[in-house]
Amino acid sequence: MKHRMSNQLLSLSPSGIRRFTALARQVEGCVSLTIGEPDFNTPEPIKAAAKRALDENLTHYPPNAGYPALLERVCQFEQEKNGVCYRPEEVIITDGATEGLFLALRGILNPGDEVIVPIPAFGVYEPIIRLSGGVMVPLNTKKSGFQIDAQALSSLITDRTKAILLNSPNNPTGVVYHQKTLEGIYELVRDRDIFVICDDVYAQLCYGDCPSFSQFQQIREKIIVVQSFSKPYAMTGWRMGYVLAAAPIAEQLVKLHSYTVVSAVSFLQPACEQALAYDPAPMIEQYRQRRDAMCMRLKKMGLQTPEPEGAFYCFPSIEKYGLSSEEFCTRMIHEAKLAAVPGSCFGTEGHIRLSYCYSQPELEEGLNRLEAFLESL
Amino acid sequence: MKHRMSNQLLSLSPSGIRRFTALARQVEGCVSLTIGEPDFNTPEPIKAAAKRALDENLTHYPPNAGYPALLERVCQFEQEKNGVCYRPEEVIITDGATEGLFLALRGILNPGDEVIVPIPAFGVYEPIIRLSGGVMVPLNTKKSGFQIDAQALSSLITDRTKAILLNSPNNPTGVVYHQKTLEGIYELVRDRDIFVICDDVYAQLCYGDCPSFSQFQQIREKIIVVQSFSKPYAMTGWRMGYVLAAAPIAEQLVKLHSYTVVSAVSFLQPACEQALAYDPAPMIEQYRQRRDAMCMRLKKMGLQTPEPEGAFYCFPSIEKYGLSSEEFCTRMIHEAKLAAVPGSCFGTEGHIRLSYCYSQPELEEGLNRLEAFLESL
Repeated sequence: MKHRMSNQLLSLSPSGIRRFTALARQVEGCVSLTIGEPDFNTPEPIKAAAKRALDENLTHYPPNAGYPALLERVCQFEQEKNGVCYRPEEVIITDGATEGLFLALRGILNPGDEVIVPIPAFGVYEPIIRLSGGVMVPLNTKKSGFQIDAQALSSLITDRTKAILLNSPNNPTGVVYHQKTLEGIYELVRDRDIFVICDDVYAQLCYGDCPSFSQFQQIREKIIVVQSFSKPYAMTGWRMGYVLAAAPIAEQLVKLHSYTVVSAVSFLQPACEQALAYDPAPMIEQYRQRRDAMCMRLKKMGLQTPEPEGAFYCFPSIEKYGLSSEEFCTRMIHEAKLAAVPGSCFGTEGHIRLSYCYSQPELEEGLNRLEAFLESL
Repeated sequence: MKHRMSNQLLSLSPSGIRRFTALARQVEGCVSLTIGEPDFNTPEPIKAAAKRALDENLTHYPPNAGYPALLERVCQFEQEKNGVCYRPEEVIITDGATEGLFLALRGILNPGDEVIVPIPAFGVYEPIIRLSGGVMVPLNTKKSGFQIDAQALSSLITDRTKAILLNSPNNPTGVVYHQKTLEGIYELVRDRDIFVICDDVYAQLCYGDCPSFSQFQQIREKIIVVQSFSKPYAMTGWRMGYVLAAAPIAEQLVKLHSYTVVSAVSFLQPACEQALAYDPAPMIEQYRQRRDAMCMRLKKMGLQTPEPEGAFYCFPSIEKYGLSSEEFCTRMIHEAKLAAVPGSCFGTEGHIRLSYCYSQPELEEGLNRLEAFLESL
């Protein structure tokens, strides 16, 4: 009966990142630098808040969009942190940012609609766009230093363009869009009926300024922000995130949310309030040290790497070795017992993604293996 | 920009149940018998297991389909409880049964595909079918005592029929499909390429035998079972459920799951293992007593009610009062301060749904108000 299933679904591949992680697990002693997940555990105060909510029997259906207290806390946080003003009815608590992306894309797309996605890009965008009946239009950012060139973007806009999907800091490059880049995009969409979806899940993991497109509140009806508790607060397993959108848009998205998952988990919501009060600075400082160490080693190995200003990835070029990124990574697992994610998983050949969400000794061992592998080529 | 959103989404109404619940909240002192949610809190051993998992820092990404221990526990439970044999790779832990329904429907439907849904039916089916590009084909069961008449079903099958969606015990009637009913359906689908989706979320809340269509394992490739931890274990706010499907089907559905929500929450999964070891018999006994009390009162009021053999609803006929169910329920809120859900929310006029997930005093007060309202008509 498989042949009778959704053709869109049958046409999709499983996540490339998970595929390479699984491949690495099959090789004994393999060091894996594949996963974009904090190695830290969730901080105690956040866990304690969830336990308290369980003790208080907050185990019943919450409102679809989330408890008012958390919605208000999110608004306050966004005001303080990003200077943007959203009202509680403009917030939806989601089952992680992936559900947020699903809501944003499925919520706006009609069959054949186009979504411009700057690449390299997180591998989940294209499947969600296709499952929503849309078409992903890739915008290669390699030639513009992984920033978005307004002219290149403009040349891709058609009558079918429904949205542009921004991800800054970017997964897999760690690059942060400059204010000038965002202004260029703003000029292009200002007078057009085009949504801008901001996948801002790494916005708090930034080693400098990180402007968000959500600053352009004068066109707020066009902006959908997708946020996550996973990365800044080491809460990946919690599957909690949120979406911000102008009220008429949010009202529609919450319907989609209710028909997909009903709501986020009730008793995890007070813990998310607690998370927003938690200062991730010490964790970020650790990431910064690891980034510096990794970048220095990669430079020593002669690998050109875009400067990561946020997130926890390096995306060095392996072009000079003349292998496809898939072949490079497959051989590296078997020959050097080191796993990375091929750039092809992000739509960009000639690069590999290394995550530095790992302890210093693991990173060092991984980089030693990388060095030895490069020498063997 | 709302006009630019998904037409399918824009065409959907919010949940009727939630609408009437909200309406009731606006009327001071209104007794609400609208919500299908256990009034019990989650049992302590289940909550304790979640807290333990938090203490053990099970806060990282779990495998997409769920932790192996829970998948195995589900298989064991299904074998013991329902005598069906599924392997761990045929189980997907979902964010509640709603996500399970979404996976099942979105996973199999291509544009224009038809899904036969016996009505009255839970109001979430049609929106999910439409969001998946499908068409709901209602099968009215009122004339056949809310059982499925094989001939009536047969007359609705076309070349576009992709699935039949069964829900036994049924929401809103509480009716359980007889073994003979299921056999009639089996005869019809056996030699056809038609999926049978079993929404079995109330299967454990049964006051007698409750055969499931999943018994027909000889056509297991056609069967997708949707289950929930919400109802039997008073875990609605946890948003945990699971899907069972033959391996080639499950393999596709887990992709959809990964692109919609990634996974269910990590540290709630050991609690679900605990739930499967919990005996819900004392809670079921309470529901049985309430059901008996409610049925007796309804009978005294002269309201014809199909015998509820499972779930926690009564679905009395109000036909003789000559009001639409929507008008009946709206007036009842304002005139008698009692909220019920109109049958129209389930696709069946001339009935209202009363939930008995409420304490004995609340139920009694509600039924007193119903009686007074009927007398005033």
